[in-house]
Amino acid sequence: MSTTYSRLFEPIELGPVTVPNRIFQPPHGNAYGLGQQQTDFRAEKAKGGFGLIVQEYSQIDETTDVTPVDSGYLHDDETIPPQKRMVDAVHAHGSKLFVELWHGGATAGNYGSRQPPLTSSQQPTGRNYTPKAMEHEDIRTVLDAFGDAADRARRAGYDGIELHAAHGYLLSQFLSPFYNDRDDEFGGSLENRMRFFEDAIERVRDNVSADMAVGARYTIDERVDGGLTADGDGIEVMRRLSDDLDFWDVDIGIKQSIDDMIGPSRRHEKNYQMDYLKAATRELDVPVGGAGRITDPDDAAALLEENYVDMIGMARQSISDPHWPRKVKAGDVDRIRECIGCNICVSQSRQGIPLVCTQNPTVGREGDWAPETYEEATDPKGVLVVGGGPAGMEFARVMGERGHLVHLKERDDRLGGRVTFEAGLPELGEWNRVRDWRAAELDRLETVSVHTGSRAEISYDDVRTYGAELVVIATGAEWDETGTTSSSHQPVPGWERDHVLTPTDAIATDLSGQTIVIFDEEGYNVSAGVAQSLATDNRVIFVTPRASAFQETLHTFERRTIFTALYDLGVEFVANHTLEEVRDDEVVASNVYSGDRRSYEADTVVFTTMRESNDDLYRSLKADAESLRSSTEIESIHAVGDCVAPRRIADAVYAGHELAREL
Amino acid sequence: MSTTYSRLFEPIELGPVTVPNRIFQPPHGNAYGLGQQQTDFRAEKAKGGFGLIVQEYSQIDETTDVTPVDSGYLHDDETIPPQKRMVDAVHAHGSKLFVELWHGGATAGNYGSRQPPLTSSQQPTGRNYTPKAMEHEDIRTVLDAFGDAADRARRAGYDGIELHAAHGYLLSQFLSPFYNDRDDEFGGSLENRMRFFEDAIERVRDNVSADMAVGARYTIDERVDGGLTADGDGIEVMRRLSDDLDFWDVDIGIKQSIDDMIGPSRRHEKNYQMDYLKAATRELDVPVGGAGRITDPDDAAALLEENYVDMIGMARQSISDPHWPRKVKAGDVDRIRECIGCNICVSQSRQGIPLVCTQNPTVGREGDWAPETYEEATDPKGVLVVGGGPAGMEFARVMGERGHLVHLKERDDRLGGRVTFEAGLPELGEWNRVRDWRAAELDRLETVSVHTGSRAEISYDDVRTYGAELVVIATGAEWDETGTTSSSHQPVPGWERDHVLTPTDAIATDLSGQTIVIFDEEGYNVSAGVAQSLATDNRVIFVTPRASAFQETLHTFERRTIFTALYDLGVEFVANHTLEEVRDDEVVASNVYSGDRRSYEADTVVFTTMRESNDDLYRSLKADAESLRSSTEIESIHAVGDCVAPRRIADAVYAGHELAREL
Repeated sequence: MSTTYSRLFEPIELGPVTVPNRIFQPPHGNAYGLGQQQTDFRAEKAKGGFGLIVQEYSQIDETTDVTPVDSGYLHDDETIPPQKRMVDAVHAHGSKLFVELWHGGATAGNYGSRQPPLTSSQQPTGRNYTPKAMEHEDIRTVLDAFGDAADRARRAGYDGIELHAAHGYLLSQFLSPFYNDRDDEFGGSLENRMRFFEDAIERVRDNVSADMAVGARYTIDERVDGGLTADGDGIEVMRRLSDDLDFWDVDIGIKQSIDDMIGPSRRHEKNYQMDYLKAATRELDVPVGGAGRITDPDDAAALLEENYVDMIGMARQSISDPHWPRKVKAGDVDRIRECIGCNICVSQSRQGIPLVCTQNPTVGREGDWAPETYEEATDPKGVLVVGGGPAGMEFARVMGERGHLVHLKERDDRLGGRVTFEAGLPELGEWNRVRDWRAAELDRLETVSVHTGSRAEISYDDVRTYGAELVVIATGAEWDETGTTSSSHQPVPGWERDHVLTPTDAIATDLSGQTIVIFDEEGYNVSAGVAQSLATDNRVIFVTPRASAFQETLHTFERRTIFTALYDLGVEFVANHTLEEVRDDEVVASNVYSGDRRSYEADTVVFTTMRESNDDLYRSLKADAESLRSSTEIESIHAVGDCVAPRRIADAVYAGHELAREL
Repeated sequence: MSTTYSRLFEPIELGPVTVPNRIFQPPHGNAYGLGQQQTDFRAEKAKGGFGLIVQEYSQIDETTDVTPVDSGYLHDDETIPPQKRMVDAVHAHGSKLFVELWHGGATAGNYGSRQPPLTSSQQPTGRNYTPKAMEHEDIRTVLDAFGDAADRARRAGYDGIELHAAHGYLLSQFLSPFYNDRDDEFGGSLENRMRFFEDAIERVRDNVSADMAVGARYTIDERVDGGLTADGDGIEVMRRLSDDLDFWDVDIGIKQSIDDMIGPSRRHEKNYQMDYLKAATRELDVPVGGAGRITDPDDAAALLEENYVDMIGMARQSISDPHWPRKVKAGDVDRIRECIGCNICVSQSRQGIPLVCTQNPTVGREGDWAPETYEEATDPKGVLVVGGGPAGMEFARVMGERGHLVHLKERDDRLGGRVTFEAGLPELGEWNRVRDWRAAELDRLETVSVHTGSRAEISYDDVRTYGAELVVIATGAEWDETGTTSSSHQPVPGWERDHVLTPTDAIATDLSGQTIVIFDEEGYNVSAGVAQSLATDNRVIFVTPRASAFQETLHTFERRTIFTALYDLGVEFVANHTLEEVRDDEVVASNVYSGDRRSYEADTVVFTTMRESNDDLYRSLKADAESLRSSTEIESIHAVGDCVAPRRIADAVYAGHELAREL
């Protein structure tokens, strides 16, 4: 290990608990519930060298639930045994496991328990309920629940507790003047607003053992008008409570500013939260940890060195590469799979879908697929992979790791496929890490040779005569040229006109001073990127049959950033409209509800509606599979990734990985 | 039983299976999974007299999954034991239980299994994937899965199978020219498009026993351009396949027209699907069942008599009142709890949230709370209920059933509270059934006396001196007058001006010829109804900080109807904007992303932003609880419903029921 990084691997005392290094996973949900998948997921991070892992937000009683999300739980004794197993699994690797005690307050809809959501004061939620302003009786009940949950955490063997006093959940609904309008002893002055949190800490202390640490997740700056700020009450709360806590896990943002809390790479530069934390770290004796797109070991070491934080937190990076600490320690810094900040992870888990990752296909399957280790092929094959996009690269990489002899053929001059295109759109440069990490790994593998730049499509005859035993087609997808939507299943009349472009063509064409209509049903980063790119030098009118643009970015927290950028560039939005026709210099749009028609000037029209598989090569080979088996070396033919079904980059990477594991 | 209804109770032969009557529950999801809750839920309908229940869409293999929804399953042998228990529970009441074999095809995102969604031809889905056009190998695999699932259904003891060939799921993606563009033997001609379905029937037949029925769920009219129609191929498919099937369960609509499939009362009159079905029923020998807002016994009997259908299907009505058949048979027609067609049920389950019902609070809790039976109070109390909205009425009703002596006081001239207001908005008249059913039940109960029309608020002293032992406050909520939103937590400057109205005031005021700005964050039926009501005689500008209006109606399938009505009335929508200020004759709105400001003329401003609990009476009584206990007969004081936390009507009814069960 380079001495540069030694600071990262110094132990740190959190009260009575010695954490073996300064790299920790702050709590993050994954919708895995409390089964074996959860244990395997957290244990993998311990195996990968994280000194401290904090198990996700765990509901302390039935007055808070996030149905349909399968979260963490500490509300009854049945939740203890599976967590005991998780503690043992983490301890087996020498790491510490804490748990976060959580009450969602106003944010938890309680659609499962059907109990009234509880909070400090009735404020609107933007959902179909207003919560209950807690009575003193409710406060006593919830304090009891904190105590009981801490007691269960102790019995499960956890090394420590993190009280969730952040993110606009219940404790912060009391702390924050943005929420708390109470006029009793739990509202008004800072002292009063802190009372509930202080009582909760005391109740937790009463129920843990002397060898357990007690700290808090805390939002030092709420990033909303009227909320806590890092240079005001935000730090003052920490000053007043640090004698009561063994550590702080600090970040910024609440529900209303969640794109500052879990900032996508589109919105925030790396390490973006650190400036909010450094004053507290430097002033307080108690250790302060923090996170926020820290992915680079040099940055991590420097942040410790310069006292921005005492512990480096990694949530998304620990998903993208749970072996980050081990790789740093082993001097394999170049082999770290850096997070791209796309937020697919959180977009899934907050909808109740088990978490996935664009960079790391083994997430959630740690038990089946020991990550970072690969079963040696007993009978190494000659493998031809056609197409070097995310699926083809990942497939070739894993097959190479397994000892197969792999040739990867890519028509373009460089690897990456759709990743290269999408990462080239404004603000998405970090997405190139999907390509670059794989390209570097392929380069390192002696079993793999990469051939780029043939320019011509790889043909049926090329494959037939290649001499490979396994043929895998990963030729990706292309944007549909016809403007077909999920409602029409029909081309837009006039689609064949020359001024109608696909997104890839539009970006490759030099367009300026034009009026451009984008007709969209993708609602995600390609349409956003094409609009942003074109709007710099053109007037852009963005038409969508959906009720609003960019619905796919709602849960990735990219929507605010995208809309802000596009409004600032003057993009005009026409929602609830479909295209009836493309004419020479205009389009006819109609309201999907009323049918009212309106024309819009259009020098150029771009369809960002759907992608279709580029599967001709695969289908023609597959049709002849029998004769190819008898007349050539070819034993089997497979397709993988978007050329099977165009989905997200994460799905293409996963499909490539899965096929290589299972062949 | 009146002879009018005797036809409903005639047995019917579905192939080898004799169903004891003609009232069946077509398959519907509930997100309860396969545990005891599912068994209790289906068994309750058998107990209530449904002759046939068809257990919900059950995935036949892992190439189709609807994560995060916990649906039905038949993809492996572990799914058999819980279903065997469900079969036994239904049989115990003399009813038959079938199961629906389901493959979602293009509609299933497979976010759990991560496998490519399968379909006939690549068409856009409006989501972040394009499905795979199935290879012949895939077709063989899925046919095997149909066979295996049928075999498991047989082993579980089901009396029959319904193949899901409807709603735009996989089999209908082959049947329908809207989806199927294939040029092989599975596409093109009707004969070719039917091939996959026919093969699936054959495979199911091969795997069931001779005493099991085999039928199909089928969409006779897809209600989309280019889809099947009832007078075209829609009925022709039935003609060609009726020799192969023992029954048909027929409806209309696919994903793109789901508001015609599961039509809310706002959109469709009662019995609205029957005209699509009658020709098939009359022409074909094989029995045809159908559903679609049939709630009235007279209608049901007439529909059989006039050969619209051979069996009366009830999905939502069987949720709203699982004892519908028993009540008809017993001559208790007036005691049926009719469905209001609000679609809260499906809006929950399709998001993975366990199904609830506005009318029936016992749904999902059949195991804890034997519905329609009530534990006799051992020590009957004198109960005062203040407030006759949904929570107060339901609470009083159940307490009365239990033998307590209940006085229900309502300030207004009639019962209903918010229900009366909301059901008075355009198109929502059937929602009054929530009030009317309860009012009739309260009238029937000798233990309950209802006092309406006091006009004045019931005061602290009224309660104190009333002489009741239990006091329950159900005073509901009021609309916030300040325009506070979930993002601002602050009143809109100028909110106190006289021309700023709440929704209730706006409806009570005679407004015409004005320009009215509605500022909305409710996004549901009150804002829609107020807009529709006011737009008849005024210009309405609808401003919302959300990305689009009526987001709460997305999953209740009311959005198309609402938008169509409002666009037709000329309502102007301004999304992504908040109100900065209300001035004398205009409002200032700003773009929530760019901050750009714009003024809109406004003679009147209506805030439909949030509701606040009307809890002063409760809080003042509760503060004195100790002294009231010692100085009056009052033993305990409770609050229930919106006066605790304003939520949906369903939540208020549930809260009232729960409190009465648990006291």
